[in-house]
Amino acid sequence: MLHDTERRALARALEIAADPSVPLGPNPRVGCVLLGADGAMLAEGHHRGAGTAHAEADALARARSLGIPLTGATAVVTLEPCAHTGRTGPCAEALLEAGIGRVVIARTDPNPVASGGIDRLRAAGIDVELDVPEALAAAAAALNRGWEHGLRHSRPLVTAKTALTLDGRAAAADGTSQWITGPAAREEVHLLRTTCDTVLVGTGTARIDQPTLTARRPDGALHPRQPLRAVMGTSAVPTLPAVEGAGQQVRLATRDPSAALAELFARGARHVLLEGGPTLTAAFLRAGLVDELILHLAPTLLGAGRPAVADLAISTLADRLDLELVDATPLPSPGGPTDLRLTLHPRPTSVSHPA
Amino acid sequence: MLHDTERRALARALEIAADPSVPLGPNPRVGCVLLGADGAMLAEGHHRGAGTAHAEADALARARSLGIPLTGATAVVTLEPCAHTGRTGPCAEALLEAGIGRVVIARTDPNPVASGGIDRLRAAGIDVELDVPEALAAAAAALNRGWEHGLRHSRPLVTAKTALTLDGRAAAADGTSQWITGPAAREEVHLLRTTCDTVLVGTGTARIDQPTLTARRPDGALHPRQPLRAVMGTSAVPTLPAVEGAGQQVRLATRDPSAALAELFARGARHVLLEGGPTLTAAFLRAGLVDELILHLAPTLLGAGRPAVADLAISTLADRLDLELVDATPLPSPGGPTDLRLTLHPRPTSVSHPA
Repeated sequence: MLHDTERRALARALEIAADPSVPLGPNPRVGCVLLGADGAMLAEGHHRGAGTAHAEADALARARSLGIPLTGATAVVTLEPCAHTGRTGPCAEALLEAGIGRVVIARTDPNPVASGGIDRLRAAGIDVELDVPEALAAAAAALNRGWEHGLRHSRPLVTAKTALTLDGRAAAADGTSQWITGPAAREEVHLLRTTCDTVLVGTGTARIDQPTLTARRPDGALHPRQPLRAVMGTSAVPTLPAVEGAGQQVRLATRDPSAALAELFARGARHVLLEGGPTLTAAFLRAGLVDELILHLAPTLLGAGRPAVADLAISTLADRLDLELVDATPLPSPGGPTDLRLTLHPRPTSVSHPA
Repeated sequence: MLHDTERRALARALEIAADPSVPLGPNPRVGCVLLGADGAMLAEGHHRGAGTAHAEADALARARSLGIPLTGATAVVTLEPCAHTGRTGPCAEALLEAGIGRVVIARTDPNPVASGGIDRLRAAGIDVELDVPEALAAAAAALNRGWEHGLRHSRPLVTAKTALTLDGRAAAADGTSQWITGPAAREEVHLLRTTCDTVLVGTGTARIDQPTLTARRPDGALHPRQPLRAVMGTSAVPTLPAVEGAGQQVRLATRDPSAALAELFARGARHVLLEGGPTLTAAFLRAGLVDELILHLAPTLLGAGRPAVADLAISTLADRLDLELVDATPLPSPGGPTDLRLTLHPRPTSVSHPA
């Protein structure tokens, strides 16, 4: 169990770990807050991307530079301190050397190379606390979803996002599709782009929609963090519109979802936002490479037009692609429609339903 | 404001009004509870369908047969007492003659022929209370939705119900469609059938699915109240399966939604549950004759197959049929999928959304 001051310190560590100026990608985001024996906050630190100090080292350095003694202090960290020497030394050792007496950890390290920090600390007699409030543990897990997925599956996490009508249409018969959803749903897409390191579309979408694939605020200004802008497919397409401050462009000359993800993973991508079109989304679904499906469902009907999900090579109901409904949240736009955001995950196995 | 005893009496009046053995249709369902000056419940009554006593008369007769004096008593009714002489005498007069001192009314009568009861009672010096708790007022309104709609629009209320996949399919490419939704959603359809006086399908659905169109309990037993079973269209189809205890069958030899509703209205229908198929649902939507759309959305994808909503003669996005999302409720089936029930109403006017 955490003390109140530790709970507040963990909330703060999560906040600084999520620093929007820190790039997403192959390194985890981590925050650390140091507390004195009386619960006073002594120093804080966070990781700022590959090659920079780990969060613990950052906080310890700050305390040292202020001449603050750390004997018997508590370190509150969002992720298990590493026990290996990479580009920086092991954090578990650094905490021991600084005289830290207790370590609060919100999330264990799934990285087999770096883990072992908890064992190392406990072996040295340090009080290690892992029992943190559920909401904070969930926030710590969410912070590095893509990074953890990459460690476990050696490919980026894939979130597919589609806007569609109640009857499953992504565009009207004449091709018009802007805008199917209201302002609230469209704003949410821009927020989604800031939580993923890469946005991926097919050549068809790149050619027809000429999307900028930037993450913008409602006032049109760019968010500080911009995703890599990836286009995959074998058709020739012009480059995406040039936007000052937008993420880098990358062209993946393949129609194979696995190959595209492998190339993006090698470039450091850990969380890909797949924004269509229907053919590409269907290809990823068919390949079992969609980890999360977000549907922005507009309360409208078209009766005809382009389906939001293209052919999945399913001809009979028993072969359908079952998903698990995780969440349904209305997205009201003031004075406009209330769209619905559905979040779905793959089901481990399809369940057949007795009549 | 109501006394506690009056609130309880109104809840009871609503309960008896909803007696499942009373047919729906052209007469309102009404309940009445009589309370003594001390708050004691003296007698209750309810209306049992065309030609039988009104709820107030039923309760008064019961009190009389028990020899209970009613001078200064309170009558709690779910609907404004009528002021006209139809097949029975005016209830407002009957309450006055019985010596009732106060009348609590949950819902005013929208029927221009029968209304005036409140004025009559007040003119006679009776204390009339209309300020009832919102939940009870809503229940009183819901009790006679179809009946009120019929008075206002001279046609039955139409609830269209469709089961579909996330990508808008009602059946797979080979025609298989049973079951797209899970047990919880399917059970809800049977409950819906008990709240409507008529179930309507097209000849295509009648021929392909050969539905019984009965309202059944999960154990297969018939509900006490069964809807009229209507099939519309000009194609030849066999009659619906004969089921002992099922509602009467009616064949409407028209493809015109307005004509079908007029014929059903003349037969006493006040709330029609439109259960498809896609062509018929589209025809009603195109005609602006769907008052409520209930979608059972299954968390599954097909990528191909029969669309749940057929062509609406819409070719461009600006002409889309906008609806208002009123409610989204998950329908979990134990051990099975969690479907989503969406309730939508027509939007008075389509709203265009700035980019």
